[in-house]
Amino acid sequence: MAVLGRGNQSDEGRNPLAIICGGGSLPFAVADAVQTQGRQVVLFPLRETADAHSVSAYPHHWMHVGQFGRFCRLARQEGCRDVVLIGALVRPAVWQLRPDFRTLLLLPRIIEFFRGGDDHLLSRIATLLGEQGFRLIGAHEVAPEILMPEGMLGSRQPSTGDDEDVAYGLRFLNAAGAFDVGQAVVIAGRHILAVEAAEGTDQMLARVAELRISGRIRSRGGVLVKAPKPGQDRRIDLPTIGPQTVEGAARAGLSGIAVVAGSTIVAQAERVGEAADRANIFAVGVRDDGSAE
Amino acid sequence: MAVLGRGNQSDEGRNPLAIICGGGSLPFAVADAVQTQGRQVVLFPLRETADAHSVSAYPHHWMHVGQFGRFCRLARQEGCRDVVLIGALVRPAVWQLRPDFRTLLLLPRIIEFFRGGDDHLLSRIATLLGEQGFRLIGAHEVAPEILMPEGMLGSRQPSTGDDEDVAYGLRFLNAAGAFDVGQAVVIAGRHILAVEAAEGTDQMLARVAELRISGRIRSRGGVLVKAPKPGQDRRIDLPTIGPQTVEGAARAGLSGIAVVAGSTIVAQAERVGEAADRANIFAVGVRDDGSAE
Repeated sequence: MAVLGRGNQSDEGRNPLAIICGGGSLPFAVADAVQTQGRQVVLFPLRETADAHSVSAYPHHWMHVGQFGRFCRLARQEGCRDVVLIGALVRPAVWQLRPDFRTLLLLPRIIEFFRGGDDHLLSRIATLLGEQGFRLIGAHEVAPEILMPEGMLGSRQPSTGDDEDVAYGLRFLNAAGAFDVGQAVVIAGRHILAVEAAEGTDQMLARVAELRISGRIRSRGGVLVKAPKPGQDRRIDLPTIGPQTVEGAARAGLSGIAVVAGSTIVAQAERVGEAADRANIFAVGVRDDGSAE
Repeated sequence: MAVLGRGNQSDEGRNPLAIICGGGSLPFAVADAVQTQGRQVVLFPLRETADAHSVSAYPHHWMHVGQFGRFCRLARQEGCRDVVLIGALVRPAVWQLRPDFRTLLLLPRIIEFFRGGDDHLLSRIATLLGEQGFRLIGAHEVAPEILMPEGMLGSRQPSTGDDEDVAYGLRFLNAAGAFDVGQAVVIAGRHILAVEAAEGTDQMLARVAELRISGRIRSRGGVLVKAPKPGQDRRIDLPTIGPQTVEGAARAGLSGIAVVAGSTIVAQAERVGEAADRANIFAVGVRDDGSAE
């Protein structure tokens, strides 16, 4: 198969879409959306992460993390050119990939992959796929319905103080975005309580909950703000929230969650709204252009 | 007693120095340095934080956190005008102050104190002291020997990769410094593993240790970088390291610690060097002017 150039987008949509699936419901939301558009899908679920029962409803080939050669062979046999990587795999898989890629790639190249952090690594995955004749595309490009809309999920609205904290958080994330660091922050009264790095959003929220229990954080309320890094590869690394994010924010005593509308993936948007109403916190999609201030 | 204006520095050194003491050895290092200069000291140790045995060697008055009225009365009786706040109290005390200040100040003013985070709060403490005729000064101004020197404590040197991570960390902390957030970060291979906020440096290092044990962080080495916030009030909130910082960094699997020379307080510098040698990690004071790159 010839390597697809950028000019070959005219045949986009004719080839079955290869979906490399991690955990959670997102892969199936994407698969359903694509099938509804009349395009075939072939799932490549990752063992021990993807849900076997849901997978069985679609054409699929199980894979272990890092079986890059197996993926290339099977995806070619299926006639796939476009590849989507979606589901709770992304961050854990990045860490798990390392030992397995050893069997596929020269060691110096692998080491180079892991220098410079995730952004670099993810763009390298895209390059690797490209070298094998595939085109990595963002799940939101084929299924825009998985993106966070502007406005509320659920009925609670942010207060004026919450709005100020959201604006402060977005400014911080924009400033921090030039560095390879997390995409989420917790702010209360313009005081940054926690910054996400290697631990991930769920662990960061658990930390805030603990600091509140121990009395180290005495302020009330606060907001979780998530935003994509400026210049990050959106095909593979958009920030994501789901019902468990709302539950973690509630346990951390927060007033709500704000994410950038159109640049954040929402797993099970309806359940996010329900969880927000149950916890009496807000979940809002905001524009990151200063209008949040 | 009249409020001291900025022009009154000519009588500096004549009045006994009031030292509000938290935990650890730093208050006594400062007291000894000041006495060696021929100036009297009066310690105001905080109950349940300052070491009673060490305190007994100096003139002193025990206080509970937040007994601002008692402090003002006794310090005036002792003829003190200059006040130093030093020791492990600073961060915990900030959190503990809130309920006690209620008895002294109008509630709306207290709430205003706690908006805008630590920087704001600390400058307000200086203002409060000033209103009562005292002058808050930095411990390092009266005892410059407690500041981190340029170069190594201990014998291990940073590698070229470590130097790159240190420079990256300093750039990040400078960028983040416009926001009210922590003064420390852990970096490995230009990937930010952890950012300090409300949890403090020791807890952040413990998190990195846990993320390594759980396999979430697979890279080796890394550096802890601490720097003062641009524009922060150095009289009361300089970053501090001590032997326990070295031990925490070692448990987190780091290669070393870098702090800004002349802008970081070192508790027990000799023991920091010994702990660094024991753990085979480096502890270096660097200049934060780009020369670290």
